[in-house]
Amino acid sequence: MKIILLSGGSGKRLWPLSNDTRSKQFLKLLKRPDGQYESMVQRVYRQIRSVSQDSQITVATVASQMDSIKSQLGDHVDIVLEPERRDTFPAIALACAYLQFEKECPLDEVVMVMPVDTYAGSDYFDVLVRMKNVVESTKSDLVLMGINPVFASPKYGYIIPTKGKSKENMIENAIPVAGFVEKPDEHAATKLIAKGAFWNGGAFAFKLGYLMSIVGGHFKDKGLSPNSFEDMRANYSLLEKTSFDYAVVEKAASISMIPYYGAWKDLGTWNTLTDEMEDKSVGMVKTNRSTVNTHIINELSIPIIVLGARDMIIAACPDGILVSDKEESAKLKDFVDDVDSRPMYEEKRWGNYKVLDYVHYENGSKSLTKHMVIQAGKGISYQCHSARDEIWTITDGTGVVLIDDIARSVSRGDVLHIAKGQKHSIRADKMADLHFIEVQLGDDLVENDILRFGETDVVEHQ
Amino acid sequence: MKIILLSGGSGKRLWPLSNDTRSKQFLKLLKRPDGQYESMVQRVYRQIRSVSQDSQITVATVASQMDSIKSQLGDHVDIVLEPERRDTFPAIALACAYLQFEKECPLDEVVMVMPVDTYAGSDYFDVLVRMKNVVESTKSDLVLMGINPVFASPKYGYIIPTKGKSKENMIENAIPVAGFVEKPDEHAATKLIAKGAFWNGGAFAFKLGYLMSIVGGHFKDKGLSPNSFEDMRANYSLLEKTSFDYAVVEKAASISMIPYYGAWKDLGTWNTLTDEMEDKSVGMVKTNRSTVNTHIINELSIPIIVLGARDMIIAACPDGILVSDKEESAKLKDFVDDVDSRPMYEEKRWGNYKVLDYVHYENGSKSLTKHMVIQAGKGISYQCHSARDEIWTITDGTGVVLIDDIARSVSRGDVLHIAKGQKHSIRADKMADLHFIEVQLGDDLVENDILRFGETDVVEHQ
Repeated sequence: MKIILLSGGSGKRLWPLSNDTRSKQFLKLLKRPDGQYESMVQRVYRQIRSVSQDSQITVATVASQMDSIKSQLGDHVDIVLEPERRDTFPAIALACAYLQFEKECPLDEVVMVMPVDTYAGSDYFDVLVRMKNVVESTKSDLVLMGINPVFASPKYGYIIPTKGKSKENMIENAIPVAGFVEKPDEHAATKLIAKGAFWNGGAFAFKLGYLMSIVGGHFKDKGLSPNSFEDMRANYSLLEKTSFDYAVVEKAASISMIPYYGAWKDLGTWNTLTDEMEDKSVGMVKTNRSTVNTHIINELSIPIIVLGARDMIIAACPDGILVSDKEESAKLKDFVDDVDSRPMYEEKRWGNYKVLDYVHYENGSKSLTKHMVIQAGKGISYQCHSARDEIWTITDGTGVVLIDDIARSVSRGDVLHIAKGQKHSIRADKMADLHFIEVQLGDDLVENDILRFGETDVVEHQ
Repeated sequence: MKIILLSGGSGKRLWPLSNDTRSKQFLKLLKRPDGQYESMVQRVYRQIRSVSQDSQITVATVASQMDSIKSQLGDHVDIVLEPERRDTFPAIALACAYLQFEKECPLDEVVMVMPVDTYAGSDYFDVLVRMKNVVESTKSDLVLMGINPVFASPKYGYIIPTKGKSKENMIENAIPVAGFVEKPDEHAATKLIAKGAFWNGGAFAFKLGYLMSIVGGHFKDKGLSPNSFEDMRANYSLLEKTSFDYAVVEKAASISMIPYYGAWKDLGTWNTLTDEMEDKSVGMVKTNRSTVNTHIINELSIPIIVLGARDMIIAACPDGILVSDKEESAKLKDFVDDVDSRPMYEEKRWGNYKVLDYVHYENGSKSLTKHMVIQAGKGISYQCHSARDEIWTITDGTGVVLIDDIARSVSRGDVLHIAKGQKHSIRADKMADLHFIEVQLGDDLVENDILRFGETDVVEHQ
């Protein structure tokens, strides 16, 4: 199976846990069968593998999410980086170009697309496999999954199946699609559901060649005919900022749909997310018996005591603390927009960091202190900063540091001074994670004060 | 005026803000007339000064509170350190011995005693002055303040005034006392109040000689007659662990009382404390309109957003986070008793520190990172640690560091390595506070791993 996972939408509807780099799909709040926590991304990945061990998975995303994906899925997926956030059509087009040009995937191979933040039962993935069978065995340009609509939501697109056609004649019980209605009001949605319409959950199957010919048409309109992945990527901004539904689905000649009646949820708000959390508390939390229907997530290293809270969500992490009535949590977005948005915790390709302290002194200078964790065998890119000095104190593990092209081994207790403009990198040895405390000093400690010289300049430590 | 302030009772009823070193009386949550925040200790000090500018104030307390008192009241008070926590009689006895032997206070001078965590109106202090007048002008051994009892509390002692005696004949309208009832049940308390009893709020006035003769009697029973403050202090553990009420008040021959009808409250629980807070929110806090009757105190440097909370207390500081229904907050004590009690923030004589990070690594080693603030002109004692190395990164200010008897000037960006066993100290220059990040490394980072060599060994920096 060739599957494209669309990983989009950073946002603050799950603040403080989600921020500009940490989207909801990366929050490890769901329970695996073995009792460990996993994120939505990890759950979808595990579910795909369980129906098809050798699926080839490509994640289409933007640079700010790359480190989280690598950290959570490792090297088991290909990542296609959108040069900028556009919409689902350009994203799927780029991922398909990657499959055609980089992976040399035949044009008659079936490609499936689904959002990476889909929260569904395992039978969802059985339907995906059936969608593939339909594309392979019929003349359908496109096969969609129809999600059983459980209420008259004005948020979704609706798929209207044809009536009267005998389903028995169709492969996999697929139903030809008569049309679509985008985001109807609640009244119209109720009528659509009464007539047998389904939600469009953004899962599609098609042949690679079908999509590439549409993409080719779009470029031809601009006088271009890119014939490599890099060519496509370089001209990405020329692709219209439009949805796959609008650019492809609504124009397809022959579409069918397979209904899915299992669990399917949008875990994009605190209210829906906590509904799916098996544990009421995560992290260092104490509550009493009069705390009822309250979910508490504590990612800080200090305890939270909750007494007599009812129907609340309490979430604490290095970015901030939320205490909200569950119903009121829908209003969160209005309040977080002007919260200082410097992420205080980030998962990176090489590990993670937590901001411990950020102080503006009276004289205008600043200090920022981080706890850095470099995963065993990994390293940060060779880089330098123009406006800050850094002092690193190694607190655990061993590794090798490169400063201005001079390498040295480091271990617990070693201190490194990195002056403005000095190139530097660090790599953890293969046996264990490397921890250090980083103190940044300067008048302007901005995140983008970084110049990178590549990823692999640190000599592997023996 | 000679006033002894009793500063006792560390406890966790106001967790996370109060802990073993930070008692409720040091929390800066009350508003001064000028809009700044002050603690109960600072409020009482300010109120005393406003009725008597040249009062001589002595604070009786234990070592763990000394730094907080010095930090909040400066050098304007004398501090008498109880060698161990006993009860109010030994504490008052020691403070009186200090006045007699160290301050050479005449034995016929009037001494007043009051708890430092008294939250009262300014007229309370007018009554104190009147109590002094009564002791000076009558034969009363002891004058008490009778607090107007606003409900039938089973928590207090009750003072029963004599009836029928004409108040007009007494100086300052003082009333002779007929007797006492300690902590009656609610029913008995209701009856006492109906008969005109008052609460005993722990404010007393007496002549120094009167008290010292009682103390002398106690020591004589043990075959001792200490005649210096140090002698008294050395034998402190021989004084019975008993209250002033039991050892002195109930045995006095002639006692009178002045009633006080003004505001008087025990701000010892979150519910009573927040009642007196003028601001609903302190620190980085955002709330919406549906957040009602909710007090939020944020001492962390990350924002708290509160939506739709009703009748709640939310308190966050480096020790932990409390989210509690106001009524339920009375149950807090049961929950905090087994919370890890390492203080994460402490006010010290020389400034303060905040624990930023405390990590136990898999191999058994640990690291602890602090942000230290040394106040301008102040310094820490010359000390060493047996089981940990420390790395200090100066982040702001200038000062002088002494390591193994070698002094050097330090400023922003300097890094100091202090190995196990090395004697060290640091002092901030007079112009500005000195900030540094301290990383402790060791297998056993306990608080009492400290050997002190004195307070003043650091050479003043020019």
